Amino acid sequence: MNGRVKRVFANLAEEVDAILLINDAEPNIDQSFFYVTGLESGLFEGCFVILWPDGSLDLFSSKLEETSARSVFEGVRIFDKAADRERMLRESLKGVKRLGLNGAAITLRSLREIKKAVPEIEEVDVWKALERARLVKDDDEIARIREACKIASDVAEEIPDFLTTGMTEYEAAAEIAYRMQKKGATSPSFDPNASFGANSAEPHHVPTNRKLSRGDCALFDFGAKYRRYCSDITRTFFSGKPNEDLEEMYSIVLEAQKAAIRMMRAGVKAKDIDVCARSIIDATRFRGRFIHSIGHAIGLSVHDGGRIAAEESFALEENMILTVEPGIYVPGIGGIRIEDDVRITASGCELLTTAPKEMMVI
Amino acid sequence: MNGRVKRVFANLAEEVDAILLINDAEPNIDQSFFYVTGLESGLFEGCFVILWPDGSLDLFSSKLEETSARSVFEGVRIFDKAADRERMLRESLKGVKRLGLNGAAITLRSLREIKKAVPEIEEVDVWKALERARLVKDDDEIARIREACKIASDVAEEIPDFLTTGMTEYEAAAEIAYRMQKKGATSPSFDPNASFGANSAEPHHVPTNRKLSRGDCALFDFGAKYRRYCSDITRTFFSGKPNEDLEEMYSIVLEAQKAAIRMMRAGVKAKDIDVCARSIIDATRFRGRFIHSIGHAIGLSVHDGGRIAAEESFALEENMILTVEPGIYVPGIGGIRIEDDVRITASGCELLTTAPKEMMVI
Repeated sequence: MNGRVKRVFANLAEEVDAILLINDAEPNIDQSFFYVTGLESGLFEGCFVILWPDGSLDLFSSKLEETSARSVFEGVRIFDKAADRERMLRESLKGVKRLGLNGAAITLRSLREIKKAVPEIEEVDVWKALERARLVKDDDEIARIREACKIASDVAEEIPDFLTTGMTEYEAAAEIAYRMQKKGATSPSFDPNASFGANSAEPHHVPTNRKLSRGDCALFDFGAKYRRYCSDITRTFFSGKPNEDLEEMYSIVLEAQKAAIRMMRAGVKAKDIDVCARSIIDATRFRGRFIHSIGHAIGLSVHDGGRIAAEESFALEENMILTVEPGIYVPGIGGIRIEDDVRITASGCELLTTAPKEMMVI
Repeated sequence: MNGRVKRVFANLAEEVDAILLINDAEPNIDQSFFYVTGLESGLFEGCFVILWPDGSLDLFSSKLEETSARSVFEGVRIFDKAADRERMLRESLKGVKRLGLNGAAITLRSLREIKKAVPEIEEVDVWKALERARLVKDDDEIARIREACKIASDVAEEIPDFLTTGMTEYEAAAEIAYRMQKKGATSPSFDPNASFGANSAEPHHVPTNRKLSRGDCALFDFGAKYRRYCSDITRTFFSGKPNEDLEEMYSIVLEAQKAAIRMMRAGVKAKDIDVCARSIIDATRFRGRFIHSIGHAIGLSVHDGGRIAAEESFALEENMILTVEPGIYVPGIGGIRIEDDVRITASGCELLTTAPKEMMVI
């Protein structure tokens, strides 16, 4: 994983002597800790890693995670009590003046523990360098994400086989999670979203006991986690013939999504992807109903940085892996969203989620 | 939820003018945000809430979560761009000198955003007051946790029906997750742990393709999330007659767990529960093989504070809900753990997970 530590340093906006990544308790675990260590098994609450400009790293683990840590890092140092941990922080950061920290993940409580151990240190927030390093995936990451995408896409393709009227949102969500895990996912990458009828107008709806009826749209947004890496897909189906609004919404969203994907390749500005899809939607009577940005990077997190939105200035690079997910939401009627994961290449992009997305009435 | 805000202020060690709970991006979402707002649906990335000493609160939500927010808080204020959000922070914190923050959840990035908006503010870490307030559950919380416990316990009771030799750990874990969700869980409260044979000697084992064989012990640690609240149960079974070590380990763990539960009631010191179970285990040839603390509170998080360990000084109070989970772990042989969730009452405790726990050979 040495290449990854060097990538992080190469992306720094200002120099630091070392970077410290430190986990608090669940859920405040820094995914960048797993990026630089490559550790697959274990939770690593309270554990930390120090990265050095030469690409090396020192890992410090609690006794509880010793087996997992030692299986990958023979030289890991183990702490038991809080006092051991504080002493290790102090000793290992000796001589460090400017210390990089991940402001997007470190808690105030951990920050205070560090300042107690090494009061003289000057902290530098390096979250942007970590995010930028993680945006471009290496071969191992691509292989894992490709498998996570395949699992989710295969399950998306099975939805028409098991979805029936009378099924509740949470039953459908359970079925999706189960099928992904049976195909080898460690877990869903987030709680699967199944939204029927008007519930789909809320992008972050949580599944309820609402049953599927004829005439409903049925939106499913979910992903698989495979060896810590995430996928993220959305498909929207119709139970029986939809009303005209929904049918029109579907064809506009599909057109916008395809147009966005067609323009994705290395060198294109991320914001132009958003502008492209938004302009298609805003040219219709559903103007203003696309209420979120068009996509984001996926990786160790489902939202792995790299938001593709009107205010972003970065350009796409080869081996970024991004979602493309325009939607139209009309309160009281429903929402349509279509989402795929794509890997950017020099000349275009590779579609990693290949489940059919033409309008389907089931 | 006003009672909850007052509870938080009542638990403060030092006075503050207001408390701000602010979410960063997933997974850095503050569960205390949901404690004080009671919001069930939605993710609420970037959203924040301000708590006032009179028990009132002001909610600020991104446009993306507007529907969920408005369904509960008619007066929610909605921001779209980062500049709106900063302005709302500045205006709403006008006149606040000492601001309470949740150091266990707030990120350094959010902290810097606050300091940019209101540079003159003095921050006070109030994570302990939040943890203490959340330790004693109110009626609504108890009802949700009771249901989360019932779901997990019912599935634990079904394990002997579906567990067969040749099944892999991850298949068993998938089956458990599926059955909980079919019974109404939103999701598992954490990735279910299924550990067969020697794998069970590692408390945080992640399910693999290891198949169940005759003579193995099979440890299952899992829980359900129901309307945001968590349960947590462990049962250990035997596939065919176990060897003498495992059988003895089981009877010791069961004795220790029952003894611990028998002494739980309001007023008892938490650490005495740990001492009780540990002394039973350490009086046997498995001395030192109980390598974690005996329990923790459950609630919005699986580890909801309130660790029951030798170094803790708090006393049990009515309506705390805690796990009781002694275990014995012998590398190369296996691990036995039995875990239940109990609600503390004035005279004893109520067992919320009632699945059988006498030794069972399947």
